[in-house]
Amino acid sequence: MLIIGERINTSRKVKNEAVIETAVINRDADFIRSIAQKQIEAGATYIDINAGTLTSGEPEALEWLTRVVQEAVEAPISFDSPNPLALELALKAYDAGKGQPFINSITAETDRFNKVLPFVLEYKAKVIALAIDDSGIQHDPEKRLSVAKALIEKLRAAGVPAGDIYIDPLTFSIGTGSEVVLDMLNIIEKLKNDCPEVHTVAGLSNVSHGLPSRKILNQAMTILALSRGLDAGIIDSNDRYLMALIAATEALLGMDEYCMNYIKMSRAGAFEGL
Amino acid sequence: MLIIGERINTSRKVKNEAVIETAVINRDADFIRSIAQKQIEAGATYIDINAGTLTSGEPEALEWLTRVVQEAVEAPISFDSPNPLALELALKAYDAGKGQPFINSITAETDRFNKVLPFVLEYKAKVIALAIDDSGIQHDPEKRLSVAKALIEKLRAAGVPAGDIYIDPLTFSIGTGSEVVLDMLNIIEKLKNDCPEVHTVAGLSNVSHGLPSRKILNQAMTILALSRGLDAGIIDSNDRYLMALIAATEALLGMDEYCMNYIKMSRAGAFEGL
Repeated sequence: MLIIGERINTSRKVKNEAVIETAVINRDADFIRSIAQKQIEAGATYIDINAGTLTSGEPEALEWLTRVVQEAVEAPISFDSPNPLALELALKAYDAGKGQPFINSITAETDRFNKVLPFVLEYKAKVIALAIDDSGIQHDPEKRLSVAKALIEKLRAAGVPAGDIYIDPLTFSIGTGSEVVLDMLNIIEKLKNDCPEVHTVAGLSNVSHGLPSRKILNQAMTILALSRGLDAGIIDSNDRYLMALIAATEALLGMDEYCMNYIKMSRAGAFEGL
Repeated sequence: MLIIGERINTSRKVKNEAVIETAVINRDADFIRSIAQKQIEAGATYIDINAGTLTSGEPEALEWLTRVVQEAVEAPISFDSPNPLALELALKAYDAGKGQPFINSITAETDRFNKVLPFVLEYKAKVIALAIDDSGIQHDPEKRLSVAKALIEKLRAAGVPAGDIYIDPLTFSIGTGSEVVLDMLNIIEKLKNDCPEVHTVAGLSNVSHGLPSRKILNQAMTILALSRGLDAGIIDSNDRYLMALIAATEALLGMDEYCMNYIKMSRAGAFEGL
């Protein structure tokens, strides 16, 4: 699974403190660098950056985060904003040598689609495409699948290669209804069958919003989604147990030939103390 | 998921020591009692007892285990032996007031079927039915599914209620081939679709045989099997992380309305330190 490290997000709190937001406001490059490095060391393949809580100054903050993160690590960046000015400044500052960026995210809403699409095309980015259109968020899974498919068509018609499209079927909290996870897993599986060339992605930790002991729910959710074909997850790669369970699941599902990666991780001590 | 605690098995080793075998040979009732109690406290619904490594004396050992376990806990027992004499002595000693026992296990092999069936009928037991017939173990999943279905027919024709049949599709180690888990999950799903009144069960820890860091593989395997419809698992209920992940998975899959059990477990401290 492609792992997009979720930690550099100004909305994230550690023990009720908005530590990332504070670091971004203070331009504390050392702190951000260490967060980026720790995520890569733990196995993230992309670093997501989000400064969305800064109602003013988000564009400059995202540009600053881009420079700090790309100096710190070799990995490509996932630019997490719907704000065209933020995307413009940040992507201009981005060193394309780090690899194909992600733009997180586009939707089928007319205004957002038109504003974000030019960046996807100009920077030949992978794009996270949320299954939302002008009718709003569809809770009915069949309708949400239709929205996703229409968005795929719209992106392909605009010239985005199918393999660069990562559909996010939307992860609702299990606290909002007992069917929401089953519905989402079915959407992933159907997309995998019906549009095999397109990828899927999810912000899996949303599933536990409002519930206690979130980490364990997020871990189980990641295994479930991976087993139904999820290609990429926006997750906390510094949760060692989560990373171990992902490696185990990939071994079990035949995605890790001869369990080579799992055995290698075990020998390197990645599972010690778990 | 119905949880059959696997710990009282003379083949089990702790740090290379056959602690259960030693306790059974020495008739160390205190030790066995505490193992039984700990499994129930951790959430096991059945206690499996197996004295199969004692090539002579298994029947008397299984009878003794029955008496010790049923004095220690209120839960029903899973009698884990293909040996008719062991089943006879142990089931005679069993207090039916503890609940419907499991017989673990029958197969479609003519001799074993004929020897074990009378106990299933006489004690109105639930029965773990391994998908094996006189042709041996079928690695091809379609063939194994056919063996399972033929065994279901054979048991039903003999008078065993469909709901008391727990088909074990056989869990091979992922070290033996990259497809073995996917094959097994497909068998579970197909049985669930084609024979919805019959149950499924698996000895999930077999999946990690011969591999390092087995616990994490077993945990991921349990989530995968549960998500495909597995009704019962022969597992280590004293693995707190495993039990937490099972509770989380049941919540996510809509098997725990309003996540009541998950929230209750969290409040009771079941996930503390995980």
